Amino acid sequence: MDYQNLANTYETPLYIYDFNDIKSRYLELKNSFSARKSLICYAVKANSNLSLLKFLANLGCGFDCVSFNEVKKALLAGAKNYNIILSGVGKRDDEIEEAIKSNILMINVESKAELLQIEKISQNLNNKTRISIRVNPNIDPKTHPYISTGLKENKFGVSIELAKWMYLYAKKSDFLDPVGIHFHIGSQLLDEQPIIEASKIIADLMKSLKALDIDIKFFDVGGGIGVDYEDEKTINLYNYTQGILSSLNGQDVTIVCEPGRFLVAKSGKLLTKVLYEKENLGKRFVIVDAAMSELLRPSLYQAFHNIKALKPYENLSKCDVVGPICESGDFLGKDINLPNLNSGDLLLIEDSGAYGFSMASNYNSRLKPAAICVLDDKIQLICKKESFEDLIKNEVEFLGNFDEKH
Amino acid sequence: MDYQNLANTYETPLYIYDFNDIKSRYLELKNSFSARKSLICYAVKANSNLSLLKFLANLGCGFDCVSFNEVKKALLAGAKNYNIILSGVGKRDDEIEEAIKSNILMINVESKAELLQIEKISQNLNNKTRISIRVNPNIDPKTHPYISTGLKENKFGVSIELAKWMYLYAKKSDFLDPVGIHFHIGSQLLDEQPIIEASKIIADLMKSLKALDIDIKFFDVGGGIGVDYEDEKTINLYNYTQGILSSLNGQDVTIVCEPGRFLVAKSGKLLTKVLYEKENLGKRFVIVDAAMSELLRPSLYQAFHNIKALKPYENLSKCDVVGPICESGDFLGKDINLPNLNSGDLLLIEDSGAYGFSMASNYNSRLKPAAICVLDDKIQLICKKESFEDLIKNEVEFLGNFDEKH
Ligand SMILES: Cc1ncc(COP(=O)(O)O)c(C=O)c1O
Ligand SMILES: Cc1ncc(COP(=O)(O)O)c(C=O)c1O
Repeated sequence: MDYQNLANTYETPLYIYDFNDIKSRYLELKNSFSARKSLICYAVKANSNLSLLKFLANLGCGFDCVSFNEVKKALLAGAKNYNIILSGVGKRDDEIEEAIKSNILMINVESKAELLQIEKISQNLNNKTRISIRVNPNIDPKTHPYISTGLKENKFGVSIELAKWMYLYAKKSDFLDPVGIHFHIGSQLLDEQPIIEASKIIADLMKSLKALDIDIKFFDVGGGIGVDYEDEKTINLYNYTQGILSSLNGQDVTIVCEPGRFLVAKSGKLLTKVLYEKENLGKRFVIVDAAMSELLRPSLYQAFHNIKALKPYENLSKCDVVGPICESGDFLGKDINLPNLNSGDLLLIEDSGAYGFSMASNYNSRLKPAAICVLDDKIQLICKKESFEDLIKNEVEFLGNFDEKH
Repeated sequence: MDYQNLANTYETPLYIYDFNDIKSRYLELKNSFSARKSLICYAVKANSNLSLLKFLANLGCGFDCVSFNEVKKALLAGAKNYNIILSGVGKRDDEIEEAIKSNILMINVESKAELLQIEKISQNLNNKTRISIRVNPNIDPKTHPYISTGLKENKFGVSIELAKWMYLYAKKSDFLDPVGIHFHIGSQLLDEQPIIEASKIIADLMKSLKALDIDIKFFDVGGGIGVDYEDEKTINLYNYTQGILSSLNGQDVTIVCEPGRFLVAKSGKLLTKVLYEKENLGKRFVIVDAAMSELLRPSLYQAFHNIKALKPYENLSKCDVVGPICESGDFLGKDINLPNLNSGDLLLIEDSGAYGFSMASNYNSRLKPAAICVLDDKIQLICKKESFEDLIKNEVEFLGNFDEKH
């Protein structure tokens, strides 16, 4: 890949996604469930680029959305409504209403209050709304506390007891149709055991619901399949899917899986340009034109991303790769071994396809960068760089109100 | 204030700024330097709303910018070029060039490589560029490591020895005019002593530069004046300014001060609506329609923000106030004492005027909220809520490229 040419054409920083790679990963996961009915619902939050969504929709992929804006994006990108799930702990009334009107596959319910609210809105719309319930299996997923979601002391899902009550309630309601059951214990999981354990607990619950004549059709195992940012041993897909399948003990359901990171993290790179090298009392800093505003993960989760120089690896020494933002928390990598770098040299921040652009901000009035994809060796722009006009668009018209001195 | 009416008119979440309060704070700080020439340069990064910048410019305030986009915003808001400073560890060439062409007060230099680059660009433009140098006094500011910037192991500024070399170099150059000296040891400082200590070190350096015939006119003490988010004892402004003034030992300079948080943090609130209450195994969660996407400080720095309910404080119990974003890191407050809350009740997340909107993202495809200001009891919209069209603006045109199945 001629990165210099890309930098010249699209400017840096620049997100680069490999769509062929995303396709392979989608097919790998899809095929690992081959023995059973399955629906892969890509977790849009990981990267909601419209072209990416359309590319996945063309492959038959479904979508796990956590806001109605994500549903709108998926639909705009050609997703089928019956392949879309709406999840999230805090859905607004207008989101629930729109989701019902869009006739999506199901709304994933996270609390008793929400169940009652969905019933009320469904009644107003005279609709029997398909729902699933997110159950909290109270399993430690062994990941960063910020992205661990399956333990009891967090905001997600409901307990098994409450779930039972909610399923019975939903079954009796004229406006609720409990078709799914859901769990998601955390993100960036490197070991399949906690998921399989959770799967067993939820499959047992599903079985006991069956005895109450509540017939679940969708068994949603959430997302969370981790990737190797450094050299982590990751989940063995065969063991993962086999473990889930065997936890079902023959129950006939469609397995829904909601991978975000697994599909896109490793397929994305953030191309950035060196601005300066500097040394502060023996410590080497490489200052680049990407920042925490384009990749928050190192700052927010102390996450590791490999960083590669696009020049010969000679005279290596350790350095911190940092962005231009005025805070010490703005770093992209610490203690990275890199050759001597000059202003203008290019670096690749690897594995930036998930939770990169989707968490981007305009901090320090920075403009969100462009994004391109590589597909069958063809390079295509899939997101334009933001403009200064974009930045001030919603503010500039009010300036006239302050012409008077106060 | 009729918050219910504001919520109905502008939707929630909503940023609300008190411009009268910002004016009082500006005047309080300005007056505390009254005995000496001073220039308050508001740190735009804290909140770059255009109306806010214009309001401050009207008061005679200058601006500390960390990107050329911030300079552009300040100029658009009516700032005088001679009241603008451009700082930042990673300035791009085009930013340096534009800053020179805009003839701003000075460019604050953070490394030797940058000094040489500014000289080169100045030579190309045949300009003698006013600069200051950011010196790292190696003082522990006793604040969160992410916003501490004055210790040697971070990316900011240069050592005293290197600064001397750079001043001598700049003095000899036909294209550099070293008019300022700068330090900034961290943000949210609650004790004036480290700043005064740093001030002494930098004043001594300035004196020794004078002996070398380098005549500094601007003594820039940075920003960092903290505010009481909880019940912290904060910097005594009188001691702060007196300490700085006395550290100068009679040297005749204009004192530049770059407050961000001090001017705007306490003047801003984030109004949010309760979506649901839920309890998970004894733990109470209040799910609101604001999230880490509007106020990242709790997630990023474990920062405390007071949260107030707009209803009688009866039957209080502790709860976590969390947003709808699908990660455990999305919280706004932990263990906050609040009354029973119903869906639709309003909460105020206090002290959100600084590093709130400026760090906002579209994570989970959320739209950035509107902002209003209160000025002389008049309420004015100063930022429109983002639209779904804004969200997809730079992506939607490329969808057509993916009409073919791959
Ligand atoms: C309910 C749910 N499903 C799926 C995902 C996607 O997670 P990942 O990107 O780790 O696969 C998340 C992530 O937070 C989630 O909360
Ligand atoms: C150089 C410089 N000046 C001023 C500020 C403003 O800091 P505060 O908002 O704490 O006053 C910062 C903040 O990071 C800074 O880096």
